[in-house]
Amino acid sequence: MAITDPIPRFSLNQNFSSWRLFYCLSLYLIISSAVVYAEDAEGISSDLYEEVLKSEAVARLYELGKVSDADDYLERTFLSPASVRAGNLIREWMEDAGLRTWVDYMGNVHGRVEGMNKTAEALLIGSHLDTVVDAGIYDGSLGIISAISALKFLKRDGQLGKLQRPVEVIAFSDEEGVRFQSTFLGSAAIAGSLPVSALNISDKRGLTLQDVLKENDIKITEEKLVELKYEPLSVWGYIEVHIEQGPVLEWAGYPLGVVKGIAGQSRLKVIVKGSQGHAGTVPMSLRQDPMAAAAELILLLESLCKHPEEFLSYDHHCNDIVVESLSKSLVCTVGEISTWPSASNVIPGQVTFTVDIRAMEDIGREAIIYELSNQMYQICEKRSVSCIIERMHDANAVNCDSELMLRLKDSANAALERLTGETQDEVPILMSGAGHDAMAISHLTKVGMLFVRCRGGVSHSPAEHVLDDDIFAAGLAIVEFLESQM
Amino acid sequence: MAITDPIPRFSLNQNFSSWRLFYCLSLYLIISSAVVYAEDAEGISSDLYEEVLKSEAVARLYELGKVSDADDYLERTFLSPASVRAGNLIREWMEDAGLRTWVDYMGNVHGRVEGMNKTAEALLIGSHLDTVVDAGIYDGSLGIISAISALKFLKRDGQLGKLQRPVEVIAFSDEEGVRFQSTFLGSAAIAGSLPVSALNISDKRGLTLQDVLKENDIKITEEKLVELKYEPLSVWGYIEVHIEQGPVLEWAGYPLGVVKGIAGQSRLKVIVKGSQGHAGTVPMSLRQDPMAAAAELILLLESLCKHPEEFLSYDHHCNDIVVESLSKSLVCTVGEISTWPSASNVIPGQVTFTVDIRAMEDIGREAIIYELSNQMYQICEKRSVSCIIERMHDANAVNCDSELMLRLKDSANAALERLTGETQDEVPILMSGAGHDAMAISHLTKVGMLFVRCRGGVSHSPAEHVLDDDIFAAGLAIVEFLESQM
Repeated sequence: MAITDPIPRFSLNQNFSSWRLFYCLSLYLIISSAVVYAEDAEGISSDLYEEVLKSEAVARLYELGKVSDADDYLERTFLSPASVRAGNLIREWMEDAGLRTWVDYMGNVHGRVEGMNKTAEALLIGSHLDTVVDAGIYDGSLGIISAISALKFLKRDGQLGKLQRPVEVIAFSDEEGVRFQSTFLGSAAIAGSLPVSALNISDKRGLTLQDVLKENDIKITEEKLVELKYEPLSVWGYIEVHIEQGPVLEWAGYPLGVVKGIAGQSRLKVIVKGSQGHAGTVPMSLRQDPMAAAAELILLLESLCKHPEEFLSYDHHCNDIVVESLSKSLVCTVGEISTWPSASNVIPGQVTFTVDIRAMEDIGREAIIYELSNQMYQICEKRSVSCIIERMHDANAVNCDSELMLRLKDSANAALERLTGETQDEVPILMSGAGHDAMAISHLTKVGMLFVRCRGGVSHSPAEHVLDDDIFAAGLAIVEFLESQM
Repeated sequence: MAITDPIPRFSLNQNFSSWRLFYCLSLYLIISSAVVYAEDAEGISSDLYEEVLKSEAVARLYELGKVSDADDYLERTFLSPASVRAGNLIREWMEDAGLRTWVDYMGNVHGRVEGMNKTAEALLIGSHLDTVVDAGIYDGSLGIISAISALKFLKRDGQLGKLQRPVEVIAFSDEEGVRFQSTFLGSAAIAGSLPVSALNISDKRGLTLQDVLKENDIKITEEKLVELKYEPLSVWGYIEVHIEQGPVLEWAGYPLGVVKGIAGQSRLKVIVKGSQGHAGTVPMSLRQDPMAAAAELILLLESLCKHPEEFLSYDHHCNDIVVESLSKSLVCTVGEISTWPSASNVIPGQVTFTVDIRAMEDIGREAIIYELSNQMYQICEKRSVSCIIERMHDANAVNCDSELMLRLKDSANAALERLTGETQDEVPILMSGAGHDAMAISHLTKVGMLFVRCRGGVSHSPAEHVLDDDIFAAGLAIVEFLESQM
């Protein structure tokens, strides 16, 4: 796929508006170049690249995106009927790519090729098959499908047997944590960091994790859960392709970027209890209204996370560098809220809401939670309501492995060069505000991640979108990475 | 039931703490007197009063309070299975009191005695059999049971046939409006103020009012709904006994009080739409978060309703008298709130919440809604989210009929005198912050209401409580009222 038109080189030093112009121009060139089929330097037919890594990969993303538990939107939670159907589909595609497949005791779907040396440390490539409620079709699925497509390309190209080490694709059963409010059930089990007590956590219907597995004919025991852990010496490393879910790559004008680390996160549950009563008869001055209190707490959270420097800088919680990092990276969200008894003519007796807090610096995140809790308790005391703050989930920030970052950067650059026919500026290095299975797997082995540009930075939404050519670029980068393992 | 001990007389001029003392003392006297059985002035056995109006009435309240759609708390919404069971029980009790019974096309349960003159204008006595979610056992049920008990007493006492006009007890199928978010479905149908379009409103499961009636073998049509309206000339008036659901009678130390009017109310639905996205990747400064916006709107509502004078006085919305009335009577509540898609790691795309606003002055309530809406739209605009404010329900304030008020006051005083054996200060006259079926029936005929003291003013809560002796007093007051119709 040779292109002779001169293309401006990628550079992050140019200003934003010229980048937008360049971005549109380069997209035009990439798209117009896609109709040109030719032999590349290694003599492989370019249409095989495009057939497997673009057309089929895109079609599979759409197909998987239709596998939902809801009629009108995409929803696949841990081992729901749609998740099981999605797992079966992924397993078929893995077998089509020449992989040996199985499903483990936590519902993770595996596909493995042994390559030249089945006793060598294996490369793991994964992402998750579950989704949020009302999800987009790329989050998680893109990483699974691009890995399968890359291996299928190698199979079609006759190179699958030449891999110097085993390669195993894993479609993790849970990353979003929607069903059990506890993330990484699938990948944490593989990494050996999922406690056996997790088998007893319950979903909203009161079913435990063990019940749900049993419903799917998986008879897990504590021993079986412990056995799920991979032997660290059997693993070489883990890589994951994922949509960025943020706006950085689109702003910079790159289809791909290499992740240097993943922000740490905490999930809290806040329960505010007041005095339940009739909406018409309790004077405003006598109320202990947990809804009004919760509103004040939510606005406090917003202020604190928008301007952490105003809350922390004079309080010696952490040094200036941490505060500055927080100012740039801290994000806080209230995604769920409910009242009891939830009737329009009743002053609620209780309001419960979730708080999601993420930051690049673990010490800064802890300082925020400390400050937030203190101020929340003060507000609740002032309003004569009671306040319980529970920590539901914590994950420290994770740094990606420098060797894997370098290999992924080289692979991404090579992929973009192959697509455009020109030498490129190096792809951007960026942080991830979203958690990923790589966080859990970092407890097992070194990890690396490749981000793919998404429209407007939008994710966790049906408006989530990735250009077909960016999907192509991601698949090509994995092929390049795998070829470096030959 | 003659009592010879001297009892201090009721007086509202005494201070609160002496009233508490008196209240405890008089309770002690009432309770200790209850074991004394004697012939009263008319020669009726006092134990018949106590047996029917206290012991049986209290037992029936507890029995009805167990009829619930939920296992752990009381919930009966419009024509739910528990509501149907409750209606059947009430019908049995009506028949036991000598009433002819039927259920109408809106699920209201009727029991009627024609008395001496079946063509005379009828006295209606009613209240509602539905409840809120996690309700107390007195709200609604007390009014139905005290009316049935009073008529049963007259039957046992051989006076039922002496009534100069027909008396009809109605247990209304819906007053709380929990299921369809539209109150007074039962009483408004009788009053002829329920539009035929109401047949098409839907509950949370998507069932229309017509569907729900059909499920219960009630084949309503628009014509049948219109025919439910009572002919105004066939009705003399309507009275209702209800727990106060507020703290006034307890503070004043009276078991009963006469209602002079019912506050007007509006129910709004506020929908805030923002930009849905991943909780980890959208910087705080770029968010259009409908949850944070909703929190600001809820705090605005609280401020405005706590201090309406600060928002309205300089704005010429209404005169000083109205503003002063608002400062005393205005109450505002957010009872329900939900997010979409409701996941802890997703910035919501939409937040919906209810607003319940009540005030004694209709013009003041309108001014508050006008001001609230204006300021809500400003906040939403400032936050780049969209805001829709829908008016779900409006009911103007209702004044009770002066003749019925006088008769109810005389009946209440006579009942308290009968209980204590002493002449009493007149029972208090008070306003109702809660809506009642009397509001709907005021479109048909003159209305009067009697309030019964409840502990701590608490209602719409399992902690709702009425003293057995106060239930006795309410039943006696209805007997006195009916005897004035002979």
